Amino acid sequence: MSKLNIGIAGLGNVGSALVQTIEENKNYFLDKKDVELNIVGISAKTKNKKRNFNISNYLWYDDPREMSKDDNCNVIVELIGEEKGISYEIIETALKNKKHVVTGNKALIANHGKELFELANINSLALSYEAAVAGGIPVIKTIKNSISLDRINKISGILNGTTNYILTKMQQDNLSFDAVLKIAKDKGFTSDQESKLDIGGYDAAHKLTILSTLCFKSNLNFNNNYIEGISNIKIEDINFAEKLGYKIKLISEACIIEEKISNFTSPKLVSMDNPLASVDNALNAINIETIHLENLFLEGEGAGGKPTASSVLSDLYDISQNEKFDNLGFKIDKLQSFEKYSAKNVINSYYLRIMTEDKPGVLSSITNYFSDFDISVKKILQLPESSEVDKPIPIIITTHNIQKEKLSNVINKIEGLEFVKEKITVLAIHDN
Amino acid sequence: MSKLNIGIAGLGNVGSALVQTIEENKNYFLDKKDVELNIVGISAKTKNKKRNFNISNYLWYDDPREMSKDDNCNVIVELIGEEKGISYEIIETALKNKKHVVTGNKALIANHGKELFELANINSLALSYEAAVAGGIPVIKTIKNSISLDRINKISGILNGTTNYILTKMQQDNLSFDAVLKIAKDKGFTSDQESKLDIGGYDAAHKLTILSTLCFKSNLNFNNNYIEGISNIKIEDINFAEKLGYKIKLISEACIIEEKISNFTSPKLVSMDNPLASVDNALNAINIETIHLENLFLEGEGAGGKPTASSVLSDLYDISQNEKFDNLGFKIDKLQSFEKYSAKNVINSYYLRIMTEDKPGVLSSITNYFSDFDISVKKILQLPESSEVDKPIPIIITTHNIQKEKLSNVINKIEGLEFVKEKITVLAIHDN
Repeated sequence: MSKLNIGIAGLGNVGSALVQTIEENKNYFLDKKDVELNIVGISAKTKNKKRNFNISNYLWYDDPREMSKDDNCNVIVELIGEEKGISYEIIETALKNKKHVVTGNKALIANHGKELFELANINSLALSYEAAVAGGIPVIKTIKNSISLDRINKISGILNGTTNYILTKMQQDNLSFDAVLKIAKDKGFTSDQESKLDIGGYDAAHKLTILSTLCFKSNLNFNNNYIEGISNIKIEDINFAEKLGYKIKLISEACIIEEKISNFTSPKLVSMDNPLASVDNALNAINIETIHLENLFLEGEGAGGKPTASSVLSDLYDISQNEKFDNLGFKIDKLQSFEKYSAKNVINSYYLRIMTEDKPGVLSSITNYFSDFDISVKKILQLPESSEVDKPIPIIITTHNIQKEKLSNVINKIEGLEFVKEKITVLAIHDN
Repeated sequence: MSKLNIGIAGLGNVGSALVQTIEENKNYFLDKKDVELNIVGISAKTKNKKRNFNISNYLWYDDPREMSKDDNCNVIVELIGEEKGISYEIIETALKNKKHVVTGNKALIANHGKELFELANINSLALSYEAAVAGGIPVIKTIKNSISLDRINKISGILNGTTNYILTKMQQDNLSFDAVLKIAKDKGFTSDQESKLDIGGYDAAHKLTILSTLCFKSNLNFNNNYIEGISNIKIEDINFAEKLGYKIKLISEACIIEEKISNFTSPKLVSMDNPLASVDNALNAINIETIHLENLFLEGEGAGGKPTASSVLSDLYDISQNEKFDNLGFKIDKLQSFEKYSAKNVINSYYLRIMTEDKPGVLSSITNYFSDFDISVKKILQLPESSEVDKPIPIIITTHNIQKEKLSNVINKIEGLEFVKEKITVLAIHDN
């Protein structure tokens, strides 16, 4: 099938960029690839709205589910992005009506993907989702096709553009989290509703769920994630981290440990010589560690109309070229339920900020606790005394690898000391 | 065809890693992908040699051309790497005998690829070469498949591991080129013969020829390259560059300017905040600039047995899955001959090191020449006076964008000045 008749549901940034790209490049696709992309139907919440193309060129559907049934379409592109609801119905209806589906909907795939992939599989249809993870970076195809016969040990990366923008801006302009969030909202980078998913780490965890499934054949199960967002990140920790040679980034990582699945999204200190540390602003990046490749690192635009539309296009191209559709990169009956690896058992190195009274003996009694609990300290940064009397001063400690539970024990003890004035800030260090 | 019967010609690092990987993962491939990879024949220069597998498990061919004719094989993997000669004959014979071919041979594809692609095309066969460019980085598949409907403006990268190792080691350990080359040879990273291709920039230019063809449909024509190697790079220039915020890297880049092809491989100064600057040691990286993606950046192992074998595997997987083979990512009759863009017209910013007598008035007479020739200076670094009397001192100048020819004119003038003691060192700055 090298001619596709396409229905597009959702005409936001990505949907509009897709329509415009197809309009502008129709002949280029035909000439270069013998691929004919025809948009036949479109649908969005609001019909009358200023758009960068003429909607009257296409059949308009008030109800996108009707488009999913229309025999004139053979591919439905879902770009509405609801976690279930109308997005799910559009896709389910399309698959039941023997139409291929392309979607950019990470929340839906992460939560309800399994039953939809089963439906696609029974009907020998494509359910493609390159646009759902890391915008314009072709990470899904890389895993499914390019390194398909390799074995992946670990996948990690920066999967959310908004939080990466916020952390970058905090660091570069020495601003607080709240101040930068306001800028991001004022600039329209994120809405109130989106920002909850972004800042809370949920959007990144949706994407990690999908990557984790592709890498380890784990059942799509959003509950397998440990998620910590960035709203508690303080500018002072960003600055101390920088002094120690790190940047703070929201890192998502998945691997199998002792036959259990470990999916973590949390802010971590990343060493400046790790390529992830240079991924700034709204960029995304993914590092894939395999038995053959050590590290394969991909970096690019993580969101935005044009990059994400490019991923939709690449899925459309795939559909035009193939007759069999390997939506997961392995047979769906290979999906397996893993037990969740316990967060208590995680072994990592850590950064701690301990706010104490500024008086003699404090540092040695803290370090004594560490040696009593057999925790190996890597570095201590004791900062110049405060000019204000009675103001607590920070002691920064980085540890060598230690089990989380063991670290929590010593932290509880230290927080109970009279001269420790605040809850201790604990951030993991991304060592690989 | 999901069962491949494979003949492997060449059992060096890559060939041996390939045999071993297939032996170890046969069941994994079958189980995950329903792909059966059978090695049926092998061939190498020397039969009796210690290897990491038992050669008696396979049919041995003294003459690999016989293997290319054997009806028991349906895929031939060529890993000998001669620019023409036996490598060409193996591939040609295989294609004429209706066998798919996988090769890692960049020199051969860059110089003689066109006629072989034509032969593959007539016979509807695969001629796959992921392993020919950047070892384990799946850049060929990314361009051919993932971003196939996009339009590429420019491709640039670090395509040779040996030179990148040498430049990194020079910088990190403050060593001369010759000293590091000796280490690289002693460690077996490069042989006398290979090192000529590596250091001269030819190996990188072979790879750039292939990438340039995929990106711009330019005829495979090695003569389109401008090539400058790294043997003239001095440790002092690496150190001065570092002071200015740059690293020196061997950069290959291709684009179309005024409908002419521009393929350059040369040592350039790369700003520390460009991701290419962090690509150290034997790593490779490629940046692809498209109309949709701005920059897509891929980094990984550029050579070595396992990573390169992984690329061969990915080609074998592709062959097992497809019936049509789009070897170039576009129809072969779309290949076009571009005129070569003139090096004189290249516009770039530059780094210059001018060794002069240490006496008053020198700097101002040099800068006067620059303003007379209307060349805009960005930065001047005048270094502390030498402690040795009569020893020339360096003046480092970086320019804004300037046409190469114009710069050459002023350089000729300045080199003629009495107080200028050496040929001026000129290196381009990689601005994008």
